[in-house]
Amino acid sequence: MAHPVSPLAPKTHPDLPEIAGVRLATAAAGIRYRGRTDVLYVGLDAGTSVAGVFTRSKCPSAPVDWCRANLAGGSARALVVNSGNANAFTGRKGADAVTLTADIAARAAGCRPAEVFVASTGVIGEPLDATKFEGVLEECAGRATGDAAAWRAAAEAIMTTDTFPKLATRTVEIDGARVTINGIAKGAGMIQPDMATMLSFVFTDAPVAAPVLQALLSAATERSFNCVTVDGDTSTSDTLIAFATGKAALAPIAQKDDPRAAAFAAALEDLLVALAQLVAKDGEGARKFVTVRVRGAVDDASAKRVAFSIANSPLVKTAVAGEDANWGRVVMAVGKAGEPADRDRLSISFGDIRVAHEGARDPAYSEEATSAYMKGEDILITADLGLGAGEARVWTCDLTKAYVEINGDYRS
Amino acid sequence: MAHPVSPLAPKTHPDLPEIAGVRLATAAAGIRYRGRTDVLYVGLDAGTSVAGVFTRSKCPSAPVDWCRANLAGGSARALVVNSGNANAFTGRKGADAVTLTADIAARAAGCRPAEVFVASTGVIGEPLDATKFEGVLEECAGRATGDAAAWRAAAEAIMTTDTFPKLATRTVEIDGARVTINGIAKGAGMIQPDMATMLSFVFTDAPVAAPVLQALLSAATERSFNCVTVDGDTSTSDTLIAFATGKAALAPIAQKDDPRAAAFAAALEDLLVALAQLVAKDGEGARKFVTVRVRGAVDDASAKRVAFSIANSPLVKTAVAGEDANWGRVVMAVGKAGEPADRDRLSISFGDIRVAHEGARDPAYSEEATSAYMKGEDILITADLGLGAGEARVWTCDLTKAYVEINGDYRS
Repeated sequence: MAHPVSPLAPKTHPDLPEIAGVRLATAAAGIRYRGRTDVLYVGLDAGTSVAGVFTRSKCPSAPVDWCRANLAGGSARALVVNSGNANAFTGRKGADAVTLTADIAARAAGCRPAEVFVASTGVIGEPLDATKFEGVLEECAGRATGDAAAWRAAAEAIMTTDTFPKLATRTVEIDGARVTINGIAKGAGMIQPDMATMLSFVFTDAPVAAPVLQALLSAATERSFNCVTVDGDTSTSDTLIAFATGKAALAPIAQKDDPRAAAFAAALEDLLVALAQLVAKDGEGARKFVTVRVRGAVDDASAKRVAFSIANSPLVKTAVAGEDANWGRVVMAVGKAGEPADRDRLSISFGDIRVAHEGARDPAYSEEATSAYMKGEDILITADLGLGAGEARVWTCDLTKAYVEINGDYRS
Repeated sequence: MAHPVSPLAPKTHPDLPEIAGVRLATAAAGIRYRGRTDVLYVGLDAGTSVAGVFTRSKCPSAPVDWCRANLAGGSARALVVNSGNANAFTGRKGADAVTLTADIAARAAGCRPAEVFVASTGVIGEPLDATKFEGVLEECAGRATGDAAAWRAAAEAIMTTDTFPKLATRTVEIDGARVTINGIAKGAGMIQPDMATMLSFVFTDAPVAAPVLQALLSAATERSFNCVTVDGDTSTSDTLIAFATGKAALAPIAQKDDPRAAAFAAALEDLLVALAQLVAKDGEGARKFVTVRVRGAVDDASAKRVAFSIANSPLVKTAVAGEDANWGRVVMAVGKAGEPADRDRLSISFGDIRVAHEGARDPAYSEEATSAYMKGEDILITADLGLGAGEARVWTCDLTKAYVEINGDYRS
């Protein structure tokens, strides 16, 4: 697990402010790792609404099943996250482990098990020994706090192959009241879009009713976490849950078309984009952060599929790792996407440098300038299909030898 | 280009027999490489029928456009293949280069340009200077032969990052007449199924009419080349062409339902499977040959999609590279395929060792035995979905650091 910190890691991590009604504590329960925290307990005040987005995998983990079932209730009092074991593909035992976890947490929080949300990340197929939470969660509940150190510890406790903790915070003024949104996330492999990706938890003091929170969260996910890919692989455990304690000095937002919802939604999306980009920047073995932008597609959905075809192409990703402006591979990836494309209208740029235009190399293209651009840490690849107004933007990282190294010996 | 020969390369390469009506010669035209052959010329006797299967890329190369257009004629007199430059995404210049190549070859072969088939492999987006074929093809035509050395040289001339030449031959007795089929192929990256993959050329003396040859070739491709993947990337240039000179002592096979067609088809498929497996065994950086078998899917098409989801997963492929029987990643890949699957009916085996059964780890599973199995060169992964009778089998290789190395500096 001791991989060097990604060179794309932010130089500093933000101090997250307190959110009234949210208290966090972490512990080392010895789930799998030695000498590090591997459990996060979050206590939430009564009245907290909840929304979630989960993996579309046909083989979801037991915690995902549990959370999906409990979302209908719309309220949350506790969140328990463990790293080291995904409790996925663990059969009947897996479901029993979640039930036991929720029972222990419910006792600690003084709530019903149906108000406990659970997420697990780590190895698939190993039974999770939930008896290890006995005593631990109660002890966590006793000392949980909402200060910056607690948020930082929370982001660290949920890491697996992540090389840095992922935290973000946003504030927004609504009707004169200050609303805060804090979020944490973990990656860093088995990251594929088309669902709420990896684990991320968002907390706000905004008084947003559960159905509204769900609608806003689903929409914002489509433009944030669902636009990031590391390796095109889809976890069995992808989970994004938002909790709203309602403690801000603001009348409840109970309708989607409440004009105040838009301001909150914008801040939420901004926060999720920041977290999603942090996940791509901590992609296993990542050395470069890549933004793929597709324009001129027949529609936005088509643009997104083309963008992912580029962002998931091993040949494009290794070329970026090799600092090679290999636009031929971008052409290949456009061609294989199965979406409408016309070779002879296609333009491709790296950064501001147009390397290909109307189906052939741009005569003005300078190999030297492009090579210099490719040495940077932030790479923008733009493909203009020249067909319509469809646009999309997705984020990924390069594919390096370190990715193979990390994943060739993750389990052993 | 000087990568070490794949450890999965066959110990010996077969000597291909002569096929009446087929003569081959190679030359060093200096397309891109120095000090190696990069052009293959094949002369075909009058009366040769032809069939082909090409990339489904929306951005096909100029030679693919040319061959598609000429297939309708049903007859072939010459084939020209160059390595080092794919003549893809080269705009109007690319089409002109193909026309010039065909003109030069037609003069050399004494035929119409429409009877010339052309394929190019190598870098995308660089203009191909077809004037380099001037004189070369005529000289090739003058000295072309059908002996084993010429076949071997042909397989070598079309290589790019391939580390060994790919040759196969089959003979079949039909109505007392001996029929021969020879084939050559090249890989080794940008290999994805769902089309005729990479370049492969098949020659037979069987008297098979072009429409029948096309039907048999398309069907056999579905069960051979379209079952192989190296990196999930789809070339702009994938081309498989079959030529039948009709010189065998056999009455023409002019109908698909001619019972003699079945015997020929079986030998053809067997040959294509052998070539497809050689391509996987020379996947860039490959250290292990992987067969993914899916059973119990709702139908064969669904099984194939699940099999490719497993075979294309970077996490599964790096686990194989790391000799780790990481069946959790196989579960993940089944789950992300988007096909019907039921976590709690799923069984997974490595070789003969069942590691997971009915949605959880198999209690009888031995980590030691599985680890020993994973050290082998030939890895079989079986996923039984437990839903229906659908089956599929695809071939791939592991994902190693060498893949990243090779593709990180291919162009520079």
